Amino acid sequence: MLYDAIADLPILSPHGHTVPEWFAQDRAFADPAALLIVPDHYVFRLLRSRGVALGDLGVGVDPADRDPRRAFRILAEHWHLFLGTPSRGWLEHTLRHVFGIDDPLGPDTADAIYDRIDAALATDAFRPRALLERFGIEVLATTDSALDDLAPHAAFATLGHRTRLVPTFRPDAVLDPAKPDWAADMERLGGLTGEDTATLAGWRAALRARRAHFRDHGATATDHAIDHLATEWLDDGEAQALLDACLTGRADAGARARLHNHMLIEMAQMSADDGLTMQIHAGSGRNTDRALFERLGPDKGADIPLPQDWVRGADGLLNRVGTEPGLTIVAFTLDESVYARELAPMAGYWPALRLGPPWWFHDSPNGIARYFDRVVETAGYWNLAGFNDDTRALMSIPARHDMWRRAVARHLDAQVARGLFGPADAERIARWLTDGAAREAYRL
Amino acid sequence: MLYDAIADLPILSPHGHTVPEWFAQDRAFADPAALLIVPDHYVFRLLRSRGVALGDLGVGVDPADRDPRRAFRILAEHWHLFLGTPSRGWLEHTLRHVFGIDDPLGPDTADAIYDRIDAALATDAFRPRALLERFGIEVLATTDSALDDLAPHAAFATLGHRTRLVPTFRPDAVLDPAKPDWAADMERLGGLTGEDTATLAGWRAALRARRAHFRDHGATATDHAIDHLATEWLDDGEAQALLDACLTGRADAGARARLHNHMLIEMAQMSADDGLTMQIHAGSGRNTDRALFERLGPDKGADIPLPQDWVRGADGLLNRVGTEPGLTIVAFTLDESVYARELAPMAGYWPALRLGPPWWFHDSPNGIARYFDRVVETAGYWNLAGFNDDTRALMSIPARHDMWRRAVARHLDAQVARGLFGPADAERIARWLTDGAAREAYRL
Amino acid sequence: MLYDAIADLPILSPHGHTVPEWFAQDRAFADPAALLIVPDHYVFRLLRSRGVALGDLGVGVDPADRDPRRAFRILAEHWHLFLGTPSRGWLEHTLRHVFGIDDPLGPDTADAIYDRIDAALATDAFRPRALLERFGIEVLATTDSALDDLAPHAAFATLGHRTRLVPTFRPDAVLDPAKPDWAADMERLGGLTGEDTATLAGWRAALRARRAHFRDHGATATDHAIDHLATEWLDDGEAQALLDACLTGRADAGARARLHNHMLIEMAQMSADDGLTMQIHAGSGRNTDRALFERLGPDKGADIPLPQDWVRGADGLLNRVGTEPGLTIVAFTLDESVYARELAPMAGYWPALRLGPPWWFHDSPNGIARYFDRVVETAGYWNLAGFNDDTRALMSIPARHDMWRRAVARHLDAQVARGLFGPADAERIARWLTDGAAREAYRL
Repeated sequence: MLYDAIADLPILSPHGHTVPEWFAQDRAFADPAALLIVPDHYVFRLLRSRGVALGDLGVGVDPADRDPRRAFRILAEHWHLFLGTPSRGWLEHTLRHVFGIDDPLGPDTADAIYDRIDAALATDAFRPRALLERFGIEVLATTDSALDDLAPHAAFATLGHRTRLVPTFRPDAVLDPAKPDWAADMERLGGLTGEDTATLAGWRAALRARRAHFRDHGATATDHAIDHLATEWLDDGEAQALLDACLTGRADAGARARLHNHMLIEMAQMSADDGLTMQIHAGSGRNTDRALFERLGPDKGADIPLPQDWVRGADGLLNRVGTEPGLTIVAFTLDESVYARELAPMAGYWPALRLGPPWWFHDSPNGIARYFDRVVETAGYWNLAGFNDDTRALMSIPARHDMWRRAVARHLDAQVARGLFGPADAERIARWLTDGAAREAYRL
Repeated sequence: MLYDAIADLPILSPHGHTVPEWFAQDRAFADPAALLIVPDHYVFRLLRSRGVALGDLGVGVDPADRDPRRAFRILAEHWHLFLGTPSRGWLEHTLRHVFGIDDPLGPDTADAIYDRIDAALATDAFRPRALLERFGIEVLATTDSALDDLAPHAAFATLGHRTRLVPTFRPDAVLDPAKPDWAADMERLGGLTGEDTATLAGWRAALRARRAHFRDHGATATDHAIDHLATEWLDDGEAQALLDACLTGRADAGARARLHNHMLIEMAQMSADDGLTMQIHAGSGRNTDRALFERLGPDKGADIPLPQDWVRGADGLLNRVGTEPGLTIVAFTLDESVYARELAPMAGYWPALRLGPPWWFHDSPNGIARYFDRVVETAGYWNLAGFNDDTRALMSIPARHDMWRRAVARHLDAQVARGLFGPADAERIARWLTDGAAREAYRL
Repeated sequence: MLYDAIADLPILSPHGHTVPEWFAQDRAFADPAALLIVPDHYVFRLLRSRGVALGDLGVGVDPADRDPRRAFRILAEHWHLFLGTPSRGWLEHTLRHVFGIDDPLGPDTADAIYDRIDAALATDAFRPRALLERFGIEVLATTDSALDDLAPHAAFATLGHRTRLVPTFRPDAVLDPAKPDWAADMERLGGLTGEDTATLAGWRAALRARRAHFRDHGATATDHAIDHLATEWLDDGEAQALLDACLTGRADAGARARLHNHMLIEMAQMSADDGLTMQIHAGSGRNTDRALFERLGPDKGADIPLPQDWVRGADGLLNRVGTEPGLTIVAFTLDESVYARELAPMAGYWPALRLGPPWWFHDSPNGIARYFDRVVETAGYWNLAGFNDDTRALMSIPARHDMWRRAVARHLDAQVARGLFGPADAERIARWLTDGAAREAYRL
């Protein structure tokens, strides 16, 4: 069985959103709802879509005022809503393989399962560092503001833990003048680095300094979240003029976007210099429920994908750096129609470009199957960047990697059955997709 | 077998285009061509695409001048053109299960089959009311102009027939200033309701009155056909100014569209009040063959889907009413690329939104398979609205529901085989998709 | 087995890019790299995407300076990059069936395989004309500039060879004012035909003359390569004014595009007159790597598909000529999202329109499977134009047709298994898709 050959490989998690303090401090998780419901927008969004109030789940509620057992009961009562979704697969995997619970979740079992999880969380075996070890996580990347001091990473590094915990340089707040706190964050960036971020040269130097800080703490990659991808190289004079306009509040939306579009290329050039792999996550329309956003803030389940034009959007970037030796750009999309039409042809051409795994809503058995169906024939397997779990749900990391590995095996078994290649090539590809591709794309 | 569990459930047909007079008057259908060819744009468009003249089929021809036997022969001679299409499946099902004809259709059998159908139509067993009963149709919705008196529905209601025949409120003619007869229809609307439709308040009151008239006749839903979906809430002053401009002919296309986009939200708000489920059918580019349209009018097979942007298009609507308790909006698209990218994420978030079944060209075995593949993982099964046959072809209703049920069973059998859930959950989902989902979405 | 019924049918290749001089002159091919690597952008683009320098493969290098054995070794060393791609399938088929080489390609076997191919190429059995015969190619179409004298075709025609070698009229250079040499080529067109191409009437007459020249040399089709499809009929005055502006350099990009958009309809009208089937290849964004284009010119692997709007883009064309008797337009797209949404509904309506096979990146087992999945239910099989190999790689022609035939058989076997039709209909469709459809669409 192909799956058996890859099932137990160590986990490489080069992109995700776990919280570094968890591992630096190693405190127990509070309760089952705080662990499995409150931080998981996959879970609470679907409950909300069928009328469950977020407040009843503890989302947007002060921890002291939450009723975690009630939240868990609500989940159990609505568990049929998750039939057919990857969330159900992940949580079932977590219950069985992390907590050893084989009973099916439902109204009748909710309390008993809650109690078992709650009891487990109080034990040392379920503290964050123990879980990293139990899960066989070799590398775990967090995603961190460019202004972060990375103290938790530094603290964790002194422990000699088997897992390598690495930060990821996420500069959106100081790169995109459209961000609400951009001007203030630019001042903080200047303060942190002793550079004058009101000049293009100073801004560049400050960004380089922060990248070096991240590299010193183990970072191997940057990450950029972009609603609508566009890139254009500007000469220094025009870029400085736009910077001036943005800093003095005279720039309109178009001018702000142009400066950001230019700075993405600057980031790619710095990546070519310092070796940090550049990740681009494009096409999520954020916070589409404005009332909810104003009440509870971002990441509450109302982010909806938007169509993307990767050919035109990445044109300025790729024509500037697409053949740069030593540069790796990993592209993630939520618009599957671009897999076969744009991203696979582009990844099969530009040396710098790798195609990231199916992202977010598409990180699912059918989503992965569609991805392989659409990209492999044009880009091959060796222009893919392997798997990212991209999660803030620590417990689900083994489940997500297992779902990927099963999907890889299912895809390759079918390719062998159709006669495209033999079992030896299939195993080589399976190992590449599980291990080698991520290791190479992220320089692990 | 999962299929067996749902094959004989009563038919719920909450959206379609049969003619209410058929059931009120219960006259025999004229002849096989008038029944199976002339009203079915699926059939005559494909014949036309291979050079058959519509006139030879009786389409656009005065009934007195038609040669129905000749039309039926033409269909039989070209029957191979339909290989692989759902139309072929529906008609084969109709011949076998409605008329008891097992011989394959072809040039050699055309006359004999014609004669058998023709003879059957002359019998009481093939009158409209008898067919409703034979087909096991529990609910049948028609689609009706907002100005309709609904007399056939009232007449049918007095009969005590087992089938519940319900109208659907379709206000496009009095809601969209771009419709050619809008101004005249607004006057008729005012006349019918005694309201001054030249004022926003009067227009609203008139629409509410007509909705009440429809509800009094059993309606549970409204329907909106929209080429290009866009929605924006306007304050009363701006809406009234646009209404003035539209009524006096001073409004350009953009102004007319803005008023319509606003009124869609007004309709949704009225639905939240009166409980009529709101259906949105978006993305059909109507009458793309302009010469044919001028000669024969609409619905002649030249409607071609257009790309849709549901995220931006429904933004104004959903931010206004997307969490309104008691409101159900059912979204239908002809642009499959939005299933996974937009509609499934949206239906998996907004409480008011349900995803309608694959529509029109996509109401087919592969179309249904792609739909489940793309929407379930993100929206689950419980944000789907079940099945609509959406047909004016009465004879094909059992065939269409049977095709859906077979596709549901095929999908769920595969899910069980992959281990996603067990047979009991599969049967629960199958019953939901066949019965419960439509009953709930349409308040039947 | 369905495949067996079609495996050995003669090859019809009604669209491709082989070089007519090969067949007129019948010289031996130079070496394995000149045959299999240098002209094949599928091959060298993927090698380049993983860092191989094009120069090391001999691409863009003077033949005298190439090292073909080294290029072949590089391919063999990187052969795993092609796992899962159709290129690998085509080359494996070529090695086995054309050269009789069963050893798998790899670093260890590269030299021996190189030597066997090299030796074979020196023999008469591997000269172009012998290969045409061995491959069972009944018709082979080349693609030729409208200004071409077609001398090689004329010379080949005198030989009495079993293969019919036909040119294809490709007028882009003299039809699209955006082409860099358009004005000069218009003068050449005038000179060749004795017409004044500065007048609309003279331009039309010159184009008609060249079409007649092509028809005299056996052409049955035209071909148009279009980045962004748009069509609009202009009256003579407006068209002449645009022609004046374009010839005198006063036209902007929009004006140049409008003239080209109009001339596409003129071409369709000429096709309705002279019976040349009109091919439209729309949606390839050409030469997206501008530095490479400036260094090495076009067709170097950096063409990336663009989204297309066929409904609006072909609106002017189809409303003018879509029901013209005797006209066949074959549409090719690189944007699969339009298969089900636009092209299948359009081909299932307009008598003049046929849907070409999956093109370029989509000419692959999964690409073909997706094509059938998305188009057949709406357009049926009889609105499809069969298969085109569209290749300049002569050796791969049997492999490509074999891949199509296997994909056809796999699709139809599955349809039979699902009960859509029986084996006799399946074989009828298989023969249509392999032979009849191309013969009819291209009037062979």
